[in-house]
Amino acid sequence: MVAASRLERLLAALQRLPGVGARSAARMAYHLLQHDRDGALALAQALREAVEGVRHCASCHTLCEQEVCATCADPARDASQLCVVETPADQAALERTGTYRGRYFVLMGRLRPLDGLGPEASGVRALLQRLQTDAAVQELILATSFTAEGEATAHVLAQLGRSLGLRVTRLARGVPLGSELEFVDLGTIAHALADRRPT
Amino acid sequence: MVAASRLERLLAALQRLPGVGARSAARMAYHLLQHDRDGALALAQALREAVEGVRHCASCHTLCEQEVCATCADPARDASQLCVVETPADQAALERTGTYRGRYFVLMGRLRPLDGLGPEASGVRALLQRLQTDAAVQELILATSFTAEGEATAHVLAQLGRSLGLRVTRLARGVPLGSELEFVDLGTIAHALADRRPT
Repeated sequence: MVAASRLERLLAALQRLPGVGARSAARMAYHLLQHDRDGALALAQALREAVEGVRHCASCHTLCEQEVCATCADPARDASQLCVVETPADQAALERTGTYRGRYFVLMGRLRPLDGLGPEASGVRALLQRLQTDAAVQELILATSFTAEGEATAHVLAQLGRSLGLRVTRLARGVPLGSELEFVDLGTIAHALADRRPT
Repeated sequence: MVAASRLERLLAALQRLPGVGARSAARMAYHLLQHDRDGALALAQALREAVEGVRHCASCHTLCEQEVCATCADPARDASQLCVVETPADQAALERTGTYRGRYFVLMGRLRPLDGLGPEASGVRALLQRLQTDAAVQELILATSFTAEGEATAHVLAQLGRSLGLRVTRLARGVPLGSELEFVDLGTIAHALADRRPT
């Protein structure tokens, strides 16, 4: 009675966004219709253009507009190393370090067995295809998150890599730079102790 | 380098939504492009339709698709009482009590002086127009939020109503049903004590 049907459809569509419930959707809809109708039209346009024009890079599976993304198209990249990350943001963080010159594979997700997201949904299948067709890869560097799901994903990918005869490595776990030990969680300290290295 | 331009435009457009920053926008964009392209198109369509078809009710200022919303079009409503609420959700909450048969005015916001939102942006001007043209209104019931901004809005509206010779009332402040006094904040208890009533 209070809300009209176009408004209801907008509220329902906004709630398909991750992390948006009924209250956030209402706040967004009222804001757009009340204060930013241009923003609403710009978002509609951007959504349509992205759906039409953004696809997966045929090589690294990230989202891009070309057949192959700029990073994969760079011939200066070392094809023997393949670093697996979860998202383009993770890839960007590694790139900003300026210390990695190998190639990437972007899962665009991670295994989430509790949510029913297996290898199909999470890019693991696309990675398998890449590894089966790209003979140049010798080392698989696992840079998924150090969370339960990221670790589970790394575990599955490590088995996959070893079954294909690749060298499989994982980013080092340890104490972050600038930390005082007193404030570092115990699991991290235990890992740093177990993985201690001669200096 | 990592993100393509259509993706960047989508990220920028998503960040125009209230409460959505760079990280949420990325999560939304990746989710839509990865798992729910139908959802993205549905949202684009819903946004466009809402911008084209949703407008303010000429009478109560809520969002609706007709010239006048269903509540305002109901002739059984008591035209002498006008209850001012901030949002359609607040109106719906009052309706669910089943105890109010008067009319409504929906501000679609509240005064937010700190954000530069004065009477223009917040529907107060539209309320003034309504009160100046609707001679049936005798009582203005202020049902804005009991927050700093809601109280400030109520204060301004009370002055407005009194200047027009209306009876102005505010929803009662007091202890919510089902509360134990021990857990009620002191401001609420102080108000309940000051507004105590014979029983």
